[in-house]
Amino acid sequence: MPGDFSLGELALRFGVELRGDPQLRVRRVATLAHAGDGDLAFLANSRYRRGLPETRATAVLVTAEDAPACPGAALVTRDPYGVYARIATLLYPTPAAVPGVHPSAVVAAGARVAPSATVGAGAVIESGAEIEAHVLVGPGCVVGAARIGEGTRLGPRVAVYDGVRIGRRCIVHAGAVLGADGFGFAPGSGGWIKVPQVGGVTIGDDVEIGANTTVDRGAIDDTVIEDGVKLDNQIQVGHNVSIGAHTAIAACTGISGSTRIGRRCLIGGMVGFAGHLTIADDVVVTGMTLVSASIREPGSYSSGMPAVETRAWRRMVAHLRRFADKERR
Amino acid sequence: MPGDFSLGELALRFGVELRGDPQLRVRRVATLAHAGDGDLAFLANSRYRRGLPETRATAVLVTAEDAPACPGAALVTRDPYGVYARIATLLYPTPAAVPGVHPSAVVAAGARVAPSATVGAGAVIESGAEIEAHVLVGPGCVVGAARIGEGTRLGPRVAVYDGVRIGRRCIVHAGAVLGADGFGFAPGSGGWIKVPQVGGVTIGDDVEIGANTTVDRGAIDDTVIEDGVKLDNQIQVGHNVSIGAHTAIAACTGISGSTRIGRRCLIGGMVGFAGHLTIADDVVVTGMTLVSASIREPGSYSSGMPAVETRAWRRMVAHLRRFADKERR
Amino acid sequence: MPGDFSLGELALRFGVELRGDPQLRVRRVATLAHAGDGDLAFLANSRYRRGLPETRATAVLVTAEDAPACPGAALVTRDPYGVYARIATLLYPTPAAVPGVHPSAVVAAGARVAPSATVGAGAVIESGAEIEAHVLVGPGCVVGAARIGEGTRLGPRVAVYDGVRIGRRCIVHAGAVLGADGFGFAPGSGGWIKVPQVGGVTIGDDVEIGANTTVDRGAIDDTVIEDGVKLDNQIQVGHNVSIGAHTAIAACTGISGSTRIGRRCLIGGMVGFAGHLTIADDVVVTGMTLVSASIREPGSYSSGMPAVETRAWRRMVAHLRRFADKERR
Repeated sequence: MPGDFSLGELALRFGVELRGDPQLRVRRVATLAHAGDGDLAFLANSRYRRGLPETRATAVLVTAEDAPACPGAALVTRDPYGVYARIATLLYPTPAAVPGVHPSAVVAAGARVAPSATVGAGAVIESGAEIEAHVLVGPGCVVGAARIGEGTRLGPRVAVYDGVRIGRRCIVHAGAVLGADGFGFAPGSGGWIKVPQVGGVTIGDDVEIGANTTVDRGAIDDTVIEDGVKLDNQIQVGHNVSIGAHTAIAACTGISGSTRIGRRCLIGGMVGFAGHLTIADDVVVTGMTLVSASIREPGSYSSGMPAVETRAWRRMVAHLRRFADKERR
Repeated sequence: MPGDFSLGELALRFGVELRGDPQLRVRRVATLAHAGDGDLAFLANSRYRRGLPETRATAVLVTAEDAPACPGAALVTRDPYGVYARIATLLYPTPAAVPGVHPSAVVAAGARVAPSATVGAGAVIESGAEIEAHVLVGPGCVVGAARIGEGTRLGPRVAVYDGVRIGRRCIVHAGAVLGADGFGFAPGSGGWIKVPQVGGVTIGDDVEIGANTTVDRGAIDDTVIEDGVKLDNQIQVGHNVSIGAHTAIAACTGISGSTRIGRRCLIGGMVGFAGHLTIADDVVVTGMTLVSASIREPGSYSSGMPAVETRAWRRMVAHLRRFADKERR
Repeated sequence: MPGDFSLGELALRFGVELRGDPQLRVRRVATLAHAGDGDLAFLANSRYRRGLPETRATAVLVTAEDAPACPGAALVTRDPYGVYARIATLLYPTPAAVPGVHPSAVVAAGARVAPSATVGAGAVIESGAEIEAHVLVGPGCVVGAARIGEGTRLGPRVAVYDGVRIGRRCIVHAGAVLGADGFGFAPGSGGWIKVPQVGGVTIGDDVEIGANTTVDRGAIDDTVIEDGVKLDNQIQVGHNVSIGAHTAIAACTGISGSTRIGRRCLIGGMVGFAGHLTIADDVVVTGMTLVSASIREPGSYSSGMPAVETRAWRRMVAHLRRFADKERR
């Protein structure tokens, strides 16, 4: 159940300027277009400014520049989105899980589950697992001999293999697979020889991992995800990859083995990284880019081709092909 | 067990012209190459016409143009593939699930499961879930406080979070995750601040969702998938995306947050959509295209570069790079 | 628990030349940088040669060229990586699973499970399933009326639909989905008509399938994966695809329906294959390439554009666009 706060209290708590009645109360968030009585909205991008004059929100988080156009109360701040994030967290607190192991869950004799932890229906906790205080293991999860740090929450049906260490306050969404074998094979006379993947996975604190994302265990040393990293859905992290603190990566990106990504990078969706690369701190990579060489300097990098009409595209491709052919002769 | 129908009956029921013995019966479908006695094949693409004269199929669905080359009975129609789809549905009816909750499933006290619904082994139905008539919840599914509409079938190990509403007669394949948090973070001084994702997911009737596809819940309003949409495997649908009725999207495509795709679009595989775009109705996007701007007009759009020999490709890349360097000076 | 072997024994067993004390023993593998007493390291790529002189490894697998720089014992071979793979397999044997069905697993009356097979906690084996000798079905798996060949190991939460046949000694990682419906719809007046997917999936021996990879069942005939194929994570294999023996495919690649890939191909990550193509044996495709036409000759093929600075990239795109526009006029 969302909370209910007066604008005066919110202004005080989050250090923002209130233009309006401090007694007004908000209990939900809403978009400018759909907000009504009791709703808090925000305007962070001036692109959406035209929605402001008509909103029926009780209050709107806005910059000083936009405040005059606000028809109701305005909470004025230089960072409407950041303050929105913090107020929304207050209004929608994560429901506290009831501690205890669901009767249908299977906890092996050699596993350690903190009394304050919650293990959902049908979950399987194998021998050697260490489930720390206030951890939530969602329904249908399978956790091997891994350590899940204090306050971390696993959604439904997450698989955690042996040798994975997850830090504190992490969130892992449904279907994620942490610690499956990396893709390592040596060519042999009768086919591929599997190279045992004997490393683990080390994940820092405050990491979020999206639905159906896969993080492979290391071949020898660990695959490493540092504190505060945010991974979207369906990302593939190869063996011995390292991702620096506070880097955020959008959905469907794939990172090949042993590539090291720096800190505070912003990686777009469906980006592909070749293996054994080093990417500096503070690098931005736009969506659908192929990163096939190391990036030594901060900055923005791209290679995704923007769509055009298929007919025009055929001409561009023909141009490139003629060029290649010309060179060949 | 497949059914068994006479050609006369099929011709009558589906309004196609029969050239052959109406007493002949078919009970299976097969390809032209592998068909034998009792099999129905089809020829929808003239590219495969050379397989027709040698087929041993009892009957073949063909156009009038191809009918003369058919060695056995011909069922003649302008739409062999569409009629094939409907006859195959008749020959291979979806097996009726036995109503009831498997003893190993866990249904919370506050969940509502229709008596005609089936809940498979090991499934978990949480409090607040509404499972309507004739729904099939496959083994190992986890369903939160979500509504699953009449006749919808969830394959094995599907995860449905709280606040997801699925319409009637939908099919969701194994491993799909519906309603996990969208990827929303605000930059803060000490790292990313998670933006609570408080919207839901609304899915219309007759929608099909492929294996391991992920559909995120909305940040504030719902993520919306309209009636008749078909999503292939491993598609990522970001928060607050909207997909118009009867649009079909091939595998591995990713759609960034708040993008609105129109009706009756055909989207190829591994296409990437940037966020906050508007795509018109009746748009075709070919495979591996990056859609980085809104598309206002129906038509076909592309940017995927076709493969060439790696040596030729290096020349093309060098050409482009020289050009960029030239400009820079 | 890893084993413990003398260098003399290893040299003899794997036919490599030992330069050093045959009594020394190794019991773990390690990287050159992190190795210590009792560790075996390897140097396969001369790029990493600078790590050799400082290593504290008890022994290093090296080529004759690198052997003189080895500070400890050297195991000299022309194929350090291949021998490493085989020694690591010896040091880290796959733990033998305890035969039997976990009490929390659900095995249907009509399923056949070999006495030497292991069925993990919470797994569901449906009627018609055939689980052969020494198979390991991981916790939370769902196996329909499918055959799992001798010695095959399914990780946690794998879904295997009816009509899938998996060969011997395969490894399938967590979250993989084998045999979900292919993406087949015929256009109809009121929307898409689902085309029943009545084929199965046939997987050979010694195949490895990565986490969250999906292999669709055939529309009519089977989807086929031949012996020794290695599939990384999050790969999508469409209906009626065929993948030739010993082909290896890196993560996130998508293969559209009915495409036939040859033997011993090496396919990079995030490659997209259009449907109905034929790819020859011994083809290499580099990462993020779009294969939109058949490839008839062995060789290396590419189309992934390497990243450059975003500003430079904008100039390249502008160049291509001007060209297309010029043509149009």
